Amino acid sequence: MSDDQTQYRIERDTMGEVRVPAAALWRAQTQRAVENFPISGRGLERAQIRALGLLKAACATVNRDIGLLDATKADAIAAAAGEIAAGRHDDQFPIDVFQTGSGTSSNMNANEVIASLAARAGVTVHPNDDVNMSQSSNDTFPTATHLAATEAVVKELIPSLDHLRLRLLDKATEWRTVVKSGRTHLMDAVPVTLGQEFGGYTRQIEAGIERLTATLPRLGELAIGGTAVGTGLNAPDGFGDRVAAELRRVTGLDQLSEARNHFEAQAARDGLVELSGALRTVAISLTKIANDIRWMGSGPLTGLAELHLPDLQPGSSIMPGKVNPVLPEAVTQVAAQVIGNDAAIAWGGGNGAFELNVYIPMMARNVLESIRLLANVSRLFADRCITGLTADVDHLRHLAESSPSIVTPLNSAIGYEEAAAVAKEALKEHKTIRQTVIDRGLIGDKLSEAELDRRLDVLSMAKVSDGQ
Amino acid sequence: MSDDQTQYRIERDTMGEVRVPAAALWRAQTQRAVENFPISGRGLERAQIRALGLLKAACATVNRDIGLLDATKADAIAAAAGEIAAGRHDDQFPIDVFQTGSGTSSNMNANEVIASLAARAGVTVHPNDDVNMSQSSNDTFPTATHLAATEAVVKELIPSLDHLRLRLLDKATEWRTVVKSGRTHLMDAVPVTLGQEFGGYTRQIEAGIERLTATLPRLGELAIGGTAVGTGLNAPDGFGDRVAAELRRVTGLDQLSEARNHFEAQAARDGLVELSGALRTVAISLTKIANDIRWMGSGPLTGLAELHLPDLQPGSSIMPGKVNPVLPEAVTQVAAQVIGNDAAIAWGGGNGAFELNVYIPMMARNVLESIRLLANVSRLFADRCITGLTADVDHLRHLAESSPSIVTPLNSAIGYEEAAAVAKEALKEHKTIRQTVIDRGLIGDKLSEAELDRRLDVLSMAKVSDGQ
Amino acid sequence: MSDDQTQYRIERDTMGEVRVPAAALWRAQTQRAVENFPISGRGLERAQIRALGLLKAACATVNRDIGLLDATKADAIAAAAGEIAAGRHDDQFPIDVFQTGSGTSSNMNANEVIASLAARAGVTVHPNDDVNMSQSSNDTFPTATHLAATEAVVKELIPSLDHLRLRLLDKATEWRTVVKSGRTHLMDAVPVTLGQEFGGYTRQIEAGIERLTATLPRLGELAIGGTAVGTGLNAPDGFGDRVAAELRRVTGLDQLSEARNHFEAQAARDGLVELSGALRTVAISLTKIANDIRWMGSGPLTGLAELHLPDLQPGSSIMPGKVNPVLPEAVTQVAAQVIGNDAAIAWGGGNGAFELNVYIPMMARNVLESIRLLANVSRLFADRCITGLTADVDHLRHLAESSPSIVTPLNSAIGYEEAAAVAKEALKEHKTIRQTVIDRGLIGDKLSEAELDRRLDVLSMAKVSDGQ
Amino acid sequence: MSDDQTQYRIERDTMGEVRVPAAALWRAQTQRAVENFPISGRGLERAQIRALGLLKAACATVNRDIGLLDATKADAIAAAAGEIAAGRHDDQFPIDVFQTGSGTSSNMNANEVIASLAARAGVTVHPNDDVNMSQSSNDTFPTATHLAATEAVVKELIPSLDHLRLRLLDKATEWRTVVKSGRTHLMDAVPVTLGQEFGGYTRQIEAGIERLTATLPRLGELAIGGTAVGTGLNAPDGFGDRVAAELRRVTGLDQLSEARNHFEAQAARDGLVELSGALRTVAISLTKIANDIRWMGSGPLTGLAELHLPDLQPGSSIMPGKVNPVLPEAVTQVAAQVIGNDAAIAWGGGNGAFELNVYIPMMARNVLESIRLLANVSRLFADRCITGLTADVDHLRHLAESSPSIVTPLNSAIGYEEAAAVAKEALKEHKTIRQTVIDRGLIGDKLSEAELDRRLDVLSMAKVSDGQ
Repeated sequence: MSDDQTQYRIERDTMGEVRVPAAALWRAQTQRAVENFPISGRGLERAQIRALGLLKAACATVNRDIGLLDATKADAIAAAAGEIAAGRHDDQFPIDVFQTGSGTSSNMNANEVIASLAARAGVTVHPNDDVNMSQSSNDTFPTATHLAATEAVVKELIPSLDHLRLRLLDKATEWRTVVKSGRTHLMDAVPVTLGQEFGGYTRQIEAGIERLTATLPRLGELAIGGTAVGTGLNAPDGFGDRVAAELRRVTGLDQLSEARNHFEAQAARDGLVELSGALRTVAISLTKIANDIRWMGSGPLTGLAELHLPDLQPGSSIMPGKVNPVLPEAVTQVAAQVIGNDAAIAWGGGNGAFELNVYIPMMARNVLESIRLLANVSRLFADRCITGLTADVDHLRHLAESSPSIVTPLNSAIGYEEAAAVAKEALKEHKTIRQTVIDRGLIGDKLSEAELDRRLDVLSMAKVSDGQ
Repeated sequence: MSDDQTQYRIERDTMGEVRVPAAALWRAQTQRAVENFPISGRGLERAQIRALGLLKAACATVNRDIGLLDATKADAIAAAAGEIAAGRHDDQFPIDVFQTGSGTSSNMNANEVIASLAARAGVTVHPNDDVNMSQSSNDTFPTATHLAATEAVVKELIPSLDHLRLRLLDKATEWRTVVKSGRTHLMDAVPVTLGQEFGGYTRQIEAGIERLTATLPRLGELAIGGTAVGTGLNAPDGFGDRVAAELRRVTGLDQLSEARNHFEAQAARDGLVELSGALRTVAISLTKIANDIRWMGSGPLTGLAELHLPDLQPGSSIMPGKVNPVLPEAVTQVAAQVIGNDAAIAWGGGNGAFELNVYIPMMARNVLESIRLLANVSRLFADRCITGLTADVDHLRHLAESSPSIVTPLNSAIGYEEAAAVAKEALKEHKTIRQTVIDRGLIGDKLSEAELDRRLDVLSMAKVSDGQ
Repeated sequence: MSDDQTQYRIERDTMGEVRVPAAALWRAQTQRAVENFPISGRGLERAQIRALGLLKAACATVNRDIGLLDATKADAIAAAAGEIAAGRHDDQFPIDVFQTGSGTSSNMNANEVIASLAARAGVTVHPNDDVNMSQSSNDTFPTATHLAATEAVVKELIPSLDHLRLRLLDKATEWRTVVKSGRTHLMDAVPVTLGQEFGGYTRQIEAGIERLTATLPRLGELAIGGTAVGTGLNAPDGFGDRVAAELRRVTGLDQLSEARNHFEAQAARDGLVELSGALRTVAISLTKIANDIRWMGSGPLTGLAELHLPDLQPGSSIMPGKVNPVLPEAVTQVAAQVIGNDAAIAWGGGNGAFELNVYIPMMARNVLESIRLLANVSRLFADRCITGLTADVDHLRHLAESSPSIVTPLNSAIGYEEAAAVAKEALKEHKTIRQTVIDRGLIGDKLSEAELDRRLDVLSMAKVSDGQ
Repeated sequence: MSDDQTQYRIERDTMGEVRVPAAALWRAQTQRAVENFPISGRGLERAQIRALGLLKAACATVNRDIGLLDATKADAIAAAAGEIAAGRHDDQFPIDVFQTGSGTSSNMNANEVIASLAARAGVTVHPNDDVNMSQSSNDTFPTATHLAATEAVVKELIPSLDHLRLRLLDKATEWRTVVKSGRTHLMDAVPVTLGQEFGGYTRQIEAGIERLTATLPRLGELAIGGTAVGTGLNAPDGFGDRVAAELRRVTGLDQLSEARNHFEAQAARDGLVELSGALRTVAISLTKIANDIRWMGSGPLTGLAELHLPDLQPGSSIMPGKVNPVLPEAVTQVAAQVIGNDAAIAWGGGNGAFELNVYIPMMARNVLESIRLLANVSRLFADRCITGLTADVDHLRHLAESSPSIVTPLNSAIGYEEAAAVAKEALKEHKTIRQTVIDRGLIGDKLSEAELDRRLDVLSMAKVSDGQ
């Protein structure tokens, strides 16, 4: 017996025979796709495989419940699909993510692996006639993609963002009255507190959660039930609605629903494009926050030196003792990747035709990676950077009091133009605003010295007591 | 008297003297900016100038109501600002859109023109102390941008999209039972009706309206009240809330509100980035629809020739009699522009620092142009293309019946594999599916000839009676 | 006689009659397009109209020289086209840039205006048969676009960039020995000189010119001669080559040539996509330079305060005396626009089909605007910002000497790990590196005090004498 | 002895102790980074690890040759680095690609693994003092990235594209005289040959190779020699030049050179942005080609059906016998990914500051992935799709003769307007152009029947004998 015969077996599909590794659970169609697409060396995202498993199980259950599929087969399919969902057979999904644009290869991969697992359990099921019953790649693969994205947003990304939001809020509270110089156009401006800045960041993240949530009603629409072209040919009436209900039950995701229009749900991938726009907005919020923080931490001696970031690792292979803002850098690089992934998603979304968009595996890869990267980095950013931040309170106050813009509250007493003259003179002659006002003889009826001092108090300028 | 003295006058600001055209309503700061930024040759969008006018009037009214500004001045400001809002002084806004990133130049332009108009009416007001009272460029320019975008989305874009949606729905209804071949991967698939396809397009546009609407709660948040850095320094308590109320009253836009966090509202422009993501999704929906329609109209003799588009203009300077799908082409070019504008908006949105994002005029240009282009082209597309479409019903049915994929409903009777053999034999031997089934001896217990005919009816395959 | 009859005249084309404004030089096809495309309110870029004029003149001349067109007609066409090129009839090009994707409407616009101008001059020429002789919109409009882009890059953008490069080089020379702290990851690093930094910027711009130049061999390929589909049907042999030669003669642009493959030259717009990639790279270089400069100018009292930028205009409507880095802001906003335009160009470039890409007017708008914006803002940046920069030399040196990274040259004497300990102790105990080395007893055989001082000299650390 | 003690060992760096897996070749700094960045689950691209190995070996060799490092150490480093380059220790590079923006962690990973390998071989070397001698992460990581990209472009991508170009050229030759209808705006146009179309594609790919080649002079500039900030502190004079020479020698890549300006080479990553623009242009060329081919292959019975693509795998899990254009779909999905990666690269490229861009690992991932994906998919496209294409020659000619645009060659005989009338009448009355010309009485002095036939010959209209 030759080596080849021991290491491979022969499988057949409608196009003929294929040699498949002897130990593989997959069959002919999977093997053809493995050979057709040696492109990136990467398969589907874990979340996508999980969603395919969840979906196949739900379809089998519904097919059983409505009497199309006998219970033995259905239960064997559901059991096998459940194992796939749980991550026990990821190595049986060897097809490259760059493949046929419908994801048919991966749908058949799931069908074949499930059939083999069922066979192992003693139940014979056909990959197409049984496992794929009432389905088509054209409804299952989009469904699995939207299911995976919904689950990842709801269960991973939003909780991570909320965790980050709470850590930012902790700092906003802690530093509520830590006054500092505002900066607009990077130039000295009137005072704010560090707490106000972190309050702004907190709101950015909160708004990001709102943005993601606002896309879910459409993201959660599932194509299942439409089969090949949206008409539902070969699926029983009500199939899509029942599968959506089953998936809601299993996952607890109330956002899932049958697509309002099955032709839209298969021909367009607009729901992913919309979601990606929201992910990108979150990436941009994170960029702003990370940039501010690394600038505030710049120094220690030649930069702004307002914040100290936790020391995580040596920063230089040549400059001893240097420590860098590595987590903000990871955050901003993730953000750049999300922005890039978004461009890929938009390109794919804009190029469907007729009853199908054939960029789905690529779009799924990018949208699921973006969610995963943002979820992971947001939590790290919170735990390894934000919580450990410390502020140089004295230095911050000193800078606030140095800013020539603190002349601003005098506008209503001495007018904008005179105030401008004061600011310029103070800067030129290295005097304080207070002294310059006095030197220019501006103390009088409109402005007493006490009033001057009241107006020049930097913390009251930040109006902290007003809230925020 | 020299020519120069008759044609120019001297104005002053805190930096000194400036020569201003004698007839101009603007003053020194505007003139400096005109000279500093000869870049694109284009000023602000009309919607942005209008919003600045609306905002300045609202601020004057609120300043009067709370007793900060005397009624004569306030009313003169409001009257002048109203003229600006109405479009009577657009030529007095000569500053390039590529300017200081805060829009300070354009805010001062508005302040100066208003002061000059008030002076013409006999009331002396100071551009900074009176017109800009309780305000800063850093809250007014973002406020005007969000106000302009909200108004344009609500009053222009959504109505245009809804108009397009209704015209698409007309066609979906008209063609409800016009059966045709589905196409997936561009290849022959099982039947759909033309009405189902247009129903899908209808849903895409409807979802686009939902997407835009979902962004409004954050887009409508107004920075006003935050002044220079978000603290509200030099503005009375409650100013932002009152101005937002006044703007709601004047515009009827319930979506407007005081920003939930003034630091976020000035430091970030995430609301525009989010909106732009939704605009881009609409652009992508339009691209899909326009592409399908021009492909269906391809021919007349060498293409698909399923639809006929209205003849709008001769199509070629060399090929006589040629007529082209020029409106779908305009639609897809607008979509490309919106996608490009979106990239510019994201870039700007990601590069703010501390208390201010300094890409606002550029972002405003792009977001307002995108809204305007989409609104205009959607209405044209509806009126000059969609309503005039005619279908070649016989040709469509012929194609539907030709598709080898109509074997699909036989799967449950003869199995996927035998069905594949039927399809391949029919194609190879140029026979119908029906004949091939008979020739292969598949008529019998499981499949009577009557059942075969029932299953091969293309309109029933499209399941039109099921809805959609 | 009614008003309408005095204000309009009736024109005819192959589709019938059209009412045209009585005074217009354009005719029926232009008028149809004006009515079909009320979308953006903007027409073609001036450079595009000019190129259409240059091309029409060149085609007429070649048609005459090879005996296809009689000299009277040809000369009348060339004269009229010359006026268009010179900018004397821009108001006769009223068609929106968002139009038919081939630019046929604008090509016919040129043909019609030329015919009318010739008629005014007493010569009757037909817009299609004479003015468009040997041409098609499908070769003229791409040709005009590539001609316009080549001319704008060579005659406007590269000279502007070279001007900027020289101004940066001036500063690199002026500040050759002005030592400052380097910054990596925004953190204090070993010294550089300000001249070295500006030398880096100089090289970025120089490389940008190289990048643009590298695209010209393909950008300069002209589609003319291919007529409708690239085959050259209805054009004499050698037409494209002769027109390219005539255009080289007239413009002096050696980069122009007949397309190496006419099918590529009409079906693809890859040359514009490639150019746009180079324009984007230039935009990104400018962003880096502008960002560094505005950060170095941050302050005056709470920022880095290393450079002082020229005061161009008051910076705030509320904060008196504030001056902002408005030109760097204009530069970075232009860069964002170029990056956005680039995304639109790529989208268009990727969506052609068969013998024609139908996104040309949109692509032309974006590529020509990007060139124009970059050319204008680069020159302004040079003249109004770079040349007026002043450095705070003492402050810069002080910062350089403060950086704990100046311990780096001691690595080879005391090892990386001991050097790290020195840096950390110095920072923690607010001592100089020099003192810390002595205090830790590191002076000895390997490191004398003289050697220590030699190694700690910040200017020698910058190795200025080594060049750059 | 506890389990922990057997499975881990303690390593130290300048920040203290770290537990490292006992079997790992890496040490403390790598381990810190592993723990700091659990983000994407993916490490560096293979090409990047290889380049780090090549670079470390070259640096050791140069350090030895100039007498800085003793030969035993240098040779041990070079040997270990050579193993890394060869791919024998990829599992020792566990750090996530989303890490510190300088790649310092991965540079130290290489230093540590090399030190451990050298120790295994009996030679003690210090990761910083010896392996990293004369280097900094800030010059090595960019150098490795540019080296990896240059090698991948020159040795993988260009050969793959050239292979594709030759396969396209085969088809252009094979189909030189296979006439078909041209299509512009998707509408019937004058004839071309299939060979002409494939000649256009051939030229697109050839131009893509030119585009990539044009970027190499700048891509091949290496930062090595600049150390921490570009000044070359701690590196001997001439180090960069010598390392570049050594790398040229080892790799055979003449495109490698010392950076012309070391400040540009470390502060900017413009060379990657430029390259990415060229990669994107190639992606766009591939998109055009793949789109045309899948449209020509559409059908088999309801589409254009001009080409038949090789059958690679069953196309549908529900529609039996369906075969889809899966390789064009993989190509266009790769193209979308490259376009997305490009956006990420541009974002990173635009956000450097001062002496360092801190988006390098992300940029390297994207640029190297883009090269790899394009190289792989171009070869597959050539081998599994292009070479197997077959044309339906009769159908193509039939369509060519059907196109009403074949009236075009009659323009010069009967005028554009009469020709338009002929085309419209023929279309309306379902007659041939030939018959319509005769019926309209146009045969006469200007146009004999023989001349009519000559002009209506579709192959001669394609002017094939003229070349292309």
